[in-house]
Amino acid sequence: MRLATIQTPQGPRAAVERSDGYYVDLHASEPGLPDNVKALLAASTAIRRLAAEVAAAPSAVAYPPQSVRLLPPIPDPGKILCIGLNYRDHAREGGKAIPEEPVLFGKFRNTLIAHGDPIRLPKVARKVDYEAELVIVIGKTGKHIPNDARAYDYVGGYTCGHDVSARDWQFRGEEKQWIIGKTFDTFAPVGPVLVTSDEIPDPHHLQIRLRRNGVTLQDSNTREFIFGVPHLLSYLSQVMTLEPGDLIFTGTPPGVGIARQPPILLQPGDIVEVEIEKIGILRNPCVAES
Amino acid sequence: MRLATIQTPQGPRAAVERSDGYYVDLHASEPGLPDNVKALLAASTAIRRLAAEVAAAPSAVAYPPQSVRLLPPIPDPGKILCIGLNYRDHAREGGKAIPEEPVLFGKFRNTLIAHGDPIRLPKVARKVDYEAELVIVIGKTGKHIPNDARAYDYVGGYTCGHDVSARDWQFRGEEKQWIIGKTFDTFAPVGPVLVTSDEIPDPHHLQIRLRRNGVTLQDSNTREFIFGVPHLLSYLSQVMTLEPGDLIFTGTPPGVGIARQPPILLQPGDIVEVEIEKIGILRNPCVAES
Repeated sequence: MRLATIQTPQGPRAAVERSDGYYVDLHASEPGLPDNVKALLAASTAIRRLAAEVAAAPSAVAYPPQSVRLLPPIPDPGKILCIGLNYRDHAREGGKAIPEEPVLFGKFRNTLIAHGDPIRLPKVARKVDYEAELVIVIGKTGKHIPNDARAYDYVGGYTCGHDVSARDWQFRGEEKQWIIGKTFDTFAPVGPVLVTSDEIPDPHHLQIRLRRNGVTLQDSNTREFIFGVPHLLSYLSQVMTLEPGDLIFTGTPPGVGIARQPPILLQPGDIVEVEIEKIGILRNPCVAES
Repeated sequence: MRLATIQTPQGPRAAVERSDGYYVDLHASEPGLPDNVKALLAASTAIRRLAAEVAAAPSAVAYPPQSVRLLPPIPDPGKILCIGLNYRDHAREGGKAIPEEPVLFGKFRNTLIAHGDPIRLPKVARKVDYEAELVIVIGKTGKHIPNDARAYDYVGGYTCGHDVSARDWQFRGEEKQWIIGKTFDTFAPVGPVLVTSDEIPDPHHLQIRLRRNGVTLQDSNTREFIFGVPHLLSYLSQVMTLEPGDLIFTGTPPGVGIARQPPILLQPGDIVEVEIEKIGILRNPCVAES
């Protein structure tokens, strides 16, 4: 199932993107269903099966795509966790050793924007770079999740993410704590929709690409992951309880702008697209901060 | 005014801690007042003045302190921002250069606990350390806040914070991204109450102490700050929009456990107290993760 959060006159609502492109407001179609995607992910498969039936019924409250304003699939994640250096080739292009365990950083909710929303290039940053990423969306509360197939029970779905990064801030100071360069307002486009995990039983064979103004700059496959989904969930949940709606950005493949000669940096007017197989295309324009 | 969030049969509620020690449920006493501290901070001074009057009235719905369960003053902050190395002496004891600009890291909401709640010492961490910190609570949305007295308009209040840190995780791997060692469940005790900024016009002259089992291990004053409150708000708000309820941990003074010979590490059964002048004492026991 393809889940979205759409803006309606009644506020943000969980929706199903149907195969005809229409978005069905689930709660308006069946008041017994949750009105938000987080609750749908945390619900039983029986509820999600019912949601699919409701979305397919002729009586569904459906909006044509051109009339819909998408919000981030999870507008209010409890955590936005990000993994660095998770593709072998990307670690190499940055001149970094292959890490022995995942590298964690994070973003705050001020970064989150939807498909179509503008990435605001900050006044104070000069080197803004792109990073295409597969995003895991947690579906079930978990601590000490095992590093095996049981980890997939905790995955609600997957979506596309764009880990926008101000390189001149990311590596600033003696301590080089990345987060300051990663958490500028609008630096986490996510979407357009979330695909539930039953449709992506193996997330380690997905083509992932990034285009800037139509030119492909990243083109890889999640089979290049250093740490797969069960490993990441197991690692992180030793430390923290994962909750439904938590987002985990899983790292980016090679081709980032800062590693190129000459470097490519995002400019006002650029259009950036992150495309992931089975999920879709996340497209965002870049504008200068006013 | 001293604001708390208390657990009531109706759920978490904003409360005023009166000078007699009683906690007044504001919304129960005057249904026109907000039921949460974040909304009270974002409200006008007229609303907060009314809240103080309601709390003092004989008709107030007041609970004696021994019957009250405190929650974190802001149970659901949008961001938990943390500043590293913000006391000159602490930077020196860690063998670090005095930073030229603030060092940012963060915690996620899974870390947040209240006064009295147990700090769970993780199974997977061996070197858990304490850090007493003054916490700024944002009261007003701000971006590009000026680095001068106008910055105080954005401060809702101050509270005590304990930045618990697993040192064996904080400095892990080649990249040394601190956040993994800082964001274990229960690693951010905050409280007991939030003191509104009108009662602390100058936050740079507050005695700050930490005791473990009654023995003082940190004893300093916020006049040792490298970066003061306006500087921090100005710096951070270049990057991100600050929102009511956001927490900013402002760094810790000297005396942390890892810098001692021999090191002092937190053990099950320890009682840790963070005491800050004009705010109060934040006390938490340590227990082993079960």
